[in-house]
Amino acid sequence: MEKNSTIIPLTSDLLNKKETVCIFGTGDFGRSLGYKMLQCGYSIVYGSRNPQASGLIPEGATISSHAEAAQMANVIIIAIHRGHYNFLESLGEVLHGKVLVDVSNNLKTNQYPESNAEYLAQLMPNSKVVKAFNTVSAWALQSGGLDASRQVFVCGDDHKSKDKVMEIVRSLGLTPVDKGSLLAATEIENYPLRLFPMWKYPILLSLGLSAFVLVYSIIRDVVYNYVEKDKKYFFFIAISIPNRICPVVALVLLALVYLPGIFAAILQLYRGTKYSRFPNWLDQWMLCRKQLGLVALAYAFLHVLYTLVIPIRYYVRWRIGSYTLEQALNNRTNPLNTENAWLSDSYVALGILGFFLFVLLGITSLPSVSNSVNWREFRFVQSYLGYLTLILCTAHTLVYGGKRFLRPSSYPWGLPSIYIFSLIIPCIVLVMKFFLILPCLDRPLTQIRQGWERKSKYVNHINNDETMKESSAV
Amino acid sequence: MEKNSTIIPLTSDLLNKKETVCIFGTGDFGRSLGYKMLQCGYSIVYGSRNPQASGLIPEGATISSHAEAAQMANVIIIAIHRGHYNFLESLGEVLHGKVLVDVSNNLKTNQYPESNAEYLAQLMPNSKVVKAFNTVSAWALQSGGLDASRQVFVCGDDHKSKDKVMEIVRSLGLTPVDKGSLLAATEIENYPLRLFPMWKYPILLSLGLSAFVLVYSIIRDVVYNYVEKDKKYFFFIAISIPNRICPVVALVLLALVYLPGIFAAILQLYRGTKYSRFPNWLDQWMLCRKQLGLVALAYAFLHVLYTLVIPIRYYVRWRIGSYTLEQALNNRTNPLNTENAWLSDSYVALGILGFFLFVLLGITSLPSVSNSVNWREFRFVQSYLGYLTLILCTAHTLVYGGKRFLRPSSYPWGLPSIYIFSLIIPCIVLVMKFFLILPCLDRPLTQIRQGWERKSKYVNHINNDETMKESSAV
Amino acid sequence: MEKNSTIIPLTSDLLNKKETVCIFGTGDFGRSLGYKMLQCGYSIVYGSRNPQASGLIPEGATISSHAEAAQMANVIIIAIHRGHYNFLESLGEVLHGKVLVDVSNNLKTNQYPESNAEYLAQLMPNSKVVKAFNTVSAWALQSGGLDASRQVFVCGDDHKSKDKVMEIVRSLGLTPVDKGSLLAATEIENYPLRLFPMWKYPILLSLGLSAFVLVYSIIRDVVYNYVEKDKKYFFFIAISIPNRICPVVALVLLALVYLPGIFAAILQLYRGTKYSRFPNWLDQWMLCRKQLGLVALAYAFLHVLYTLVIPIRYYVRWRIGSYTLEQALNNRTNPLNTENAWLSDSYVALGILGFFLFVLLGITSLPSVSNSVNWREFRFVQSYLGYLTLILCTAHTLVYGGKRFLRPSSYPWGLPSIYIFSLIIPCIVLVMKFFLILPCLDRPLTQIRQGWERKSKYVNHINNDETMKESSAV
Repeated sequence: MEKNSTIIPLTSDLLNKKETVCIFGTGDFGRSLGYKMLQCGYSIVYGSRNPQASGLIPEGATISSHAEAAQMANVIIIAIHRGHYNFLESLGEVLHGKVLVDVSNNLKTNQYPESNAEYLAQLMPNSKVVKAFNTVSAWALQSGGLDASRQVFVCGDDHKSKDKVMEIVRSLGLTPVDKGSLLAATEIENYPLRLFPMWKYPILLSLGLSAFVLVYSIIRDVVYNYVEKDKKYFFFIAISIPNRICPVVALVLLALVYLPGIFAAILQLYRGTKYSRFPNWLDQWMLCRKQLGLVALAYAFLHVLYTLVIPIRYYVRWRIGSYTLEQALNNRTNPLNTENAWLSDSYVALGILGFFLFVLLGITSLPSVSNSVNWREFRFVQSYLGYLTLILCTAHTLVYGGKRFLRPSSYPWGLPSIYIFSLIIPCIVLVMKFFLILPCLDRPLTQIRQGWERKSKYVNHINNDETMKESSAV
Repeated sequence: MEKNSTIIPLTSDLLNKKETVCIFGTGDFGRSLGYKMLQCGYSIVYGSRNPQASGLIPEGATISSHAEAAQMANVIIIAIHRGHYNFLESLGEVLHGKVLVDVSNNLKTNQYPESNAEYLAQLMPNSKVVKAFNTVSAWALQSGGLDASRQVFVCGDDHKSKDKVMEIVRSLGLTPVDKGSLLAATEIENYPLRLFPMWKYPILLSLGLSAFVLVYSIIRDVVYNYVEKDKKYFFFIAISIPNRICPVVALVLLALVYLPGIFAAILQLYRGTKYSRFPNWLDQWMLCRKQLGLVALAYAFLHVLYTLVIPIRYYVRWRIGSYTLEQALNNRTNPLNTENAWLSDSYVALGILGFFLFVLLGITSLPSVSNSVNWREFRFVQSYLGYLTLILCTAHTLVYGGKRFLRPSSYPWGLPSIYIFSLIIPCIVLVMKFFLILPCLDRPLTQIRQGWERKSKYVNHINNDETMKESSAV
Repeated sequence: MEKNSTIIPLTSDLLNKKETVCIFGTGDFGRSLGYKMLQCGYSIVYGSRNPQASGLIPEGATISSHAEAAQMANVIIIAIHRGHYNFLESLGEVLHGKVLVDVSNNLKTNQYPESNAEYLAQLMPNSKVVKAFNTVSAWALQSGGLDASRQVFVCGDDHKSKDKVMEIVRSLGLTPVDKGSLLAATEIENYPLRLFPMWKYPILLSLGLSAFVLVYSIIRDVVYNYVEKDKKYFFFIAISIPNRICPVVALVLLALVYLPGIFAAILQLYRGTKYSRFPNWLDQWMLCRKQLGLVALAYAFLHVLYTLVIPIRYYVRWRIGSYTLEQALNNRTNPLNTENAWLSDSYVALGILGFFLFVLLGITSLPSVSNSVNWREFRFVQSYLGYLTLILCTAHTLVYGGKRFLRPSSYPWGLPSIYIFSLIIPCIVLVMKFFLILPCLDRPLTQIRQGWERKSKYVNHINNDETMKESSAV
C-alpha cells in the first residue's frame, strides 16, 4: 500500500501542481482532452507510434513513443479504440501498477460480451483500470459546453486510482460521480448511446393519436362545412382543430398512465401472488408511465393555451359581434340562460382544477423534487392526486359535452364529436378502479402486495405475523 | 485489515459475478429484495427456522437454517423485526466479521430509545452493521417503481462494509447515498414515516381561509342577490367565487411568509442579541415559510387561470353582449373613459408583474436550483424579489379596489368586499418592514446579526474587529 | 496510520456521542457555529486570548486559552481571519496531527496568491487542514435558513480528517460535498462571493433593449396620437407598450443565443481547425448562452400573459363594443373575412407552438433535468428544438406583421413598427444557419469538429482512421 501511495500520490501537493499525465492516442478525443488538461495546468505527454507527427497535438504538449510517454506519468489515458487495446500487452511492465483510464465508447449498445474497461482490465492485470470521461463529448471539452450535465461517471476496482482520476475530473471543472466497481463499466459505456429510450413509445403513440384526430376533425368540421354548406373554414386547421386534438390526446394518454396499474392488480388477484413476473409488454408499459404522463401534460398545456387565446381570435370576435349585431338590427333581446351559465362555468372550472393538479404532478416528477420526497409521499401524490386529476379531466369532458350529443345537428354525416371517443378509455379505467377499491377486492389485493400467497402451503397472513412465527421459533 | 479485505472482497472480480448474499427472514421485504437481487445476478440463500417452507421463497433462491445460510455469504441482510433481533446473539460466531444489513423500519417515529441498527450493532459487536434499503418499498422493488426516488440511504461505521453494501445497491439500479456513521440510522429510520410534515400547517391554514372566504362570498354575492334582487347567481360558485378565494388566500399567505422575519427582527432588537433562541412557535413558523410561499403560489396560479378564462364564460359574454345591445336599442353611444382604462390596465399590469416574480421565486425554490446558487444569491432572490412581489401584489389589490369602496352599492347588507380584509396583513407587513429598514433601526439590527451583543461587558463591534483584537494579542 | 485512527476515531461510537470540538475565535461565525453544534449534542470549548470574556460565548460552551482548548479536542475549527493565522505556528506541537478546519472567507475573489486553507496547511505542516463551512452563513446556522442550499463544500488532503469533518457536517443536518484535495480550496473560497456572474450581461442587455423599445414605442404610439390626433393614450404605458417590449426583446435575445455558435462555426471553417482558442468575447458569449435563453424565456412568458389579458382590458372591450355599436346604429353588417381569420389564427398558432417549445427548452435547462440526460439527448433538445423555436417565433412575428407594413398608415411620423427591427437578427441567424447546413459547408465543418485539421502535414480524416493508423503500426 505504501508502494502505491508513492507511485500514486493521493494528495496533490502544492509544489508540483503541474503533474504529468500521459495520453495514448492523438485522435480527436485524445487531443481535446489534452487541450483541456493543458488549460487546467497539467503537463501532457502523448504516446504515439510516430512521435514526429507533433503537428497533431495541442501546443504545450510533448509527444514520444508509447513506452517513453508511459514512463513519465502515473496516469495513462487510453484514448484509442478497443480494437487496438491488444498492443498494450507489449507495454505490460512499463504500465505495471499504473492507472489506465479507459475513455472509450462503442458504436452500439452491448456491442461486446464485456465492457471495454473490463476487457482492458483482463489484458493488463497488473495495471489499475479506471473507466471515466466517456460520457463527455470532445466538442464539449472544447467549447465549455452548453451547460449540459458536467457529470463524469467514474468506476474502477482500485479506490486509490479512482480517487486519483476523480481528482483530475474535478480539476477540469467537471463533477465526478462514483459508480462503484468496474462492473458498472457496461452501464457507463451504454449511457452515451441512449436517446430518450423511454420516450419513444409515448411520443409515437401521441403522434398517431394526433394524426387520427386531425384527419377525423378535418373531415367533420372543414370538409363537411365546405361540401354541404359551402363555408370556407379551412383556417380551423390553425387553432380550432389543434384545440380538439390536444384535449383528446391528453385525456387518453392520462388514462393510459393508470390502465397498466389496473391490469397489474387484476393479474395479481388472478395469480394470487406478486412474486411472478408480469408479461413483458406490461413491464414496458409500467416503466414508461412517467413519460406517458408528461406527454399528456404537454398536450394539456397546449390545450390550455389554445383555449385561452379564443377571445383574441378574429373569427370569434366576428362571430360574437355579428350575433349581437343581428339581434340589434332585429330589435331582439336575449335573457340570461342560467343553465347555460352553469354548464359553461362548471366545465371550465373542472378543466382549471384538473390542469392545476396535472401541473402539480408534473412538478413532483422533476428529478430533484421526486428525490426529495420519500416513498409514502411520492405514492400519495402520484396515485391519489393522479386519480383525482383523471376524474376531474373526465368530468370536464363530460360536462363540456353536456346535452350536446343529443342534438342531431351535432352529427354531421352521422359523425359524432371526437370528444365522445376520448371518453372511452378514461371511463373504463375509472370504472375498473372503482371495483378494485371495493373491500371485497381491495383486501385480498393488499394482502397479496404485502407478500401473502394463495398457493403457499400454509396460510401466512402478512409480513409481521410471518416473521414473528419465523424468529420466535428460534 | 488484510483479514477484512479477504473476508469482504471489496472489488467484485469478474470470475464470480454471481456472489452469494444471505437473507434472514422470508417476510415480504425479504422475498421482494431477494427476488430483485436474483434478477440482478446474485445467488440468494435464505435463512429460516423452517427450511422446508421453500414455497415461500422466490424461484432460484435456496433456503436453509440460519447458521448454514450465514456461512455461505459475507453479507447477511436482516429482514426481520427488531423485536426478534435477540435470537441473532446465538449466531455470534457464525456472523463474526460479517456484514449485517439492517433493513428494518419502525411503525412510528422515535419508537425506541436508539435506532434499530444501533441496537443491532450493540447486540452483535463483532459483526459490521450497515443500515440500508429501509427507504425503498417492497412494492417498488417489484414493480420497478413509478420513477420515484431511487436513492437508498446507507450508513455504517465500517467503511469497507459500507462500500460493499453500496456496491450491491448500485448493482440493483438504485443510487446509494452515504449518510456517514451509524449515528445517522435514527434519521434514516424516521425518513420513510414522514408525510409532508412541513406542509401540514400551511395547507390547513389555506383551507381554513378558503372556507371562510367561500362562505362570506356566497352570502354577499349569491344569497344577497337571490333574496334582495331575486337573481339566481348560484353558478357563481363555479368560477366567480373561487376567483375571489384564490387571490385573497394567496395574498394573505404571501404576507405570512414575511411576517415571522419581522417578528424575529423585533425580538432581536429588543433582546439586543441573536444568540438566544426564538420562541418555539416562531421557529416553527420560520421553518415552514417555503411551504407557505409555495401554497400561496398555487393559489395565485389558480387565480390567474380563473381570471384568464373570464372572457370565455357564457355569462360574461352575455353581459357584455346585452350591454352593447341595450345601448344599440336606445341609440346611445359610450365614449372612452380614459380613467377607467388607466385603472383597469394598471391593476392588470401590476398583477402580471407580481405573478411573474412569484413564479420566479417558485422556480428558485426547486431543490436543484436552490442547490446551485450560493447564500448571497439565494438571499438576494428570496428577500429582495420576495418583498417586491409582495409590494406588487398588494398594489394590484389596492388598484383593483380603486374608488370602488367609496360607492355604497358595494356594501350589500353592509358587507365590504372581501379584498379589503385581504389587504390588512400585507399592509401591516410592509409598514413594519418600512420602519425596520430605516437607518435608526437597520444599523443596530445589522450589528446584532453580525454578532454584536448589547449585554456583553465591553463593546465588540463586529466579527472583524473582534477577531482582530483576539488574535493580535497572541 | 494506526496512530491517526486512534487520535481521530473515524467511527463515532455510541458511548461518547458528545465528542468535544474546539473553536478558535469567538467572533460571530465562531459563536454561531458553536451555538449550532451545542444544539446538536457536541460539547464545545473555545480558544481565546481572554478566557474571562465568557460573556461572549453561547451558554453550555467553555472557554480557555488556545493551548488548553486545543488539548481537549481532535478537531479545531479556526474561526479567525487569515491575517492572524501566523500566531498558530506557536501552537505547532499542540496541534500536531490534529484536524484544523479552515472556515474563513475573503472579501474579494482571488484576494491572495493561494487559498487561505492552503496557506494554513503551509503554516502547519504537521496538522491536517480541511476546508469547510465557509459556504454557510452564520445567520443561516442560527435561523435554520430559508431552505437554501444545505450543501457544505469540504476539501482536504487527508481522507480520514475529511471524513471526520463531513461526519460533523452531517450531524448538523447539512449535506457535505467532497470537493477533493486542498487544491479545490481556492474555488470553494471564491464560491460565496459570487453574485450571478453569468447573468450580468444578459440582464444588462435585455434592460438596454427594453429601454430603447419603451422610448421608441412611447413616441410612436402615445406622443404621436396625442400631438397629431389629440388622443390621450397614456394608459398604453401599462400594458400595450410592455406587450411590445416583451416580444421584441425575447425574440432578439433568443436569436443572440444561436449567433455565437454560428460565429464559432465560421471561425473554425476559416481556421481549418478546432484546436485554437476562440477570441475572448466569443468564449464569454458562448458561456452565457443559457442565461440569455432564460432571460428571453422570461420576456416571452410576460408577453404571453400580457397578450392573454387583452380581452379583459376595459379599453379593448370598449373598442370592440363601440365598433359593434357603430355598425348597429348605421345598420351595417360585416361579413366574415376569411383571409383575416387565416392571418390572425395562424400567427397566434405559431406563437403558441413557439412558446411551448421555448418552455420545453427552459425545463430541460433545469440542473436536475440536464443532469439526467446524456450529451446526445441534451444536444438534440438544445440545438434541434432550439432552432425550431427560433423559426417558429420568427414566423410568428412575420405573420403578425402580415401585409400591415405596406399600409402607409402604419408609419406615423415615418416610424416603422418596432417588430420590424426585432426581425433583423433572427433572420440573419436563420439565413447563416441555412448556409452552414449546406453539404458543401457542413461536411468540412463536421470533419473539423471531429479533429481533422487543414494545416496538418498529412491528411487525417477522423478519429477512427487516425487511431487505426496509429495503433495498427504497433
